Amino acid sequence: MKLNVYATPDNLADKELRDKVVVVIDVLRATSTILTALFNGCKEVIPAIEIEEVINMSKNYEKDSFLLCGERNIHAIDGFHLSNSPLEYTAERVSDKTLLLTTTNGTRAIRRAIDAREVIMCSMTNVDVVAEHIAQQQDDTVFICAGTDGQFSMDDVVTAGAVINRLKAMMDDLDMGDLAVVSEAMYRSCNGDFHSLLKDSVHYKRMMAAGLKEDIDYCLTLNTAPVVGVYKDGVIKKLDKSEN
Amino acid sequence: MKLNVYATPDNLADKELRDKVVVVIDVLRATSTILTALFNGCKEVIPAIEIEEVINMSKNYEKDSFLLCGERNIHAIDGFHLSNSPLEYTAERVSDKTLLLTTTNGTRAIRRAIDAREVIMCSMTNVDVVAEHIAQQQDDTVFICAGTDGQFSMDDVVTAGAVINRLKAMMDDLDMGDLAVVSEAMYRSCNGDFHSLLKDSVHYKRMMAAGLKEDIDYCLTLNTAPVVGVYKDGVIKKLDKSEN
Repeated sequence: MKLNVYATPDNLADKELRDKVVVVIDVLRATSTILTALFNGCKEVIPAIEIEEVINMSKNYEKDSFLLCGERNIHAIDGFHLSNSPLEYTAERVSDKTLLLTTTNGTRAIRRAIDAREVIMCSMTNVDVVAEHIAQQQDDTVFICAGTDGQFSMDDVVTAGAVINRLKAMMDDLDMGDLAVVSEAMYRSCNGDFHSLLKDSVHYKRMMAAGLKEDIDYCLTLNTAPVVGVYKDGVIKKLDKSEN
Repeated sequence: MKLNVYATPDNLADKELRDKVVVVIDVLRATSTILTALFNGCKEVIPAIEIEEVINMSKNYEKDSFLLCGERNIHAIDGFHLSNSPLEYTAERVSDKTLLLTTTNGTRAIRRAIDAREVIMCSMTNVDVVAEHIAQQQDDTVFICAGTDGQFSMDDVVTAGAVINRLKAMMDDLDMGDLAVVSEAMYRSCNGDFHSLLKDSVHYKRMMAAGLKEDIDYCLTLNTAPVVGVYKDGVIKKLDKSEN
């Protein structure tokens, strides 16, 4: 089984995705937020690239059935119900709602994966269930990291490494690309201390400077939202286990 | 001083290169070969993307003043004088010659760098002099790794890490992108045993399978061709120290 990791969604040939399981990672914070919302009982999450797209989509929904969610360059969007902080996505707020979400890097990565056989969401909050799901599928798997401003972002790559570390313990026949090997070594090297590993990284520093330490602490904690989120026909839902 | 590392030459915005020092790395084997040729006294190296381009260029040169050099997918090119093995680029063969060179990944990376303020060649064979040169320039520096078939290639990234490791010892004010941080950590992690680090990497395995272990051994030895090679106006020459 082939495993490849891409540091950004840019410059990915369609053939790299076709017939593959694609695992989208934006650990700080889009996929952490999406998975937390699914875990806390939201109906679905619809990712959009532009703010206008979110507002237009919202016209198709009953009042009180949806929430406008997301951020631009870390900050909340005027007039939106929720920012991109996973801590806001409590059961009380999101239960049974449709979340219309736009984020700077994450939703671009999700939409890029549209040609894949299956697209699932990943962050530190669900690494164990993602690894189990991939091991069950036994299909070639591609990790697409959202990156930061089109650049390699350590936070996302080490999250791929966390999943690959678990896959290595479960399977013998992994054929890994170079960045898959590097990401797993990076994960092992830090012995679970993600803060030390990431303290010099661009996105981590930017979020710390914006006062988002609590979000970082949450997003770098393993398996707090242990659900598989599947993106299909433009909508992200919690995997119905009877379909698996 | 900003340091960024790019895993491939693709998807690099022109603004990332303008006014920067660009360091091109294709350690297995194009930049190792170019630097070895410059160290052994060739007049200049002219990188070309296509085989036809090399053959057309050669018509402008006197017989015996040039050599046709390069590879396609690791293998020598029919009718060319030299392959892409640095071990063939002895003083006896290359002294005072113009080398017309085409390689699968390396020459693409070199030509991509054309918008930079200065473009220099790097491999394990010249890491010390490259670090000294960058430290003297004091300009923002971008490492462009050639990659393998458009993918992240560990051999190139760890070579960037070797240079950055030396820069960190020389300078205090480095502002590093995430892949710069990762590459330097990767370099430190292997304690100089590049073979152990790279044994599971795609390009290394492909070259071993092609019987090129001697080339790999040479290319992964530090500072055997300690020259700065500068690409300017389409031609790579050894840096004239009086210009520096």
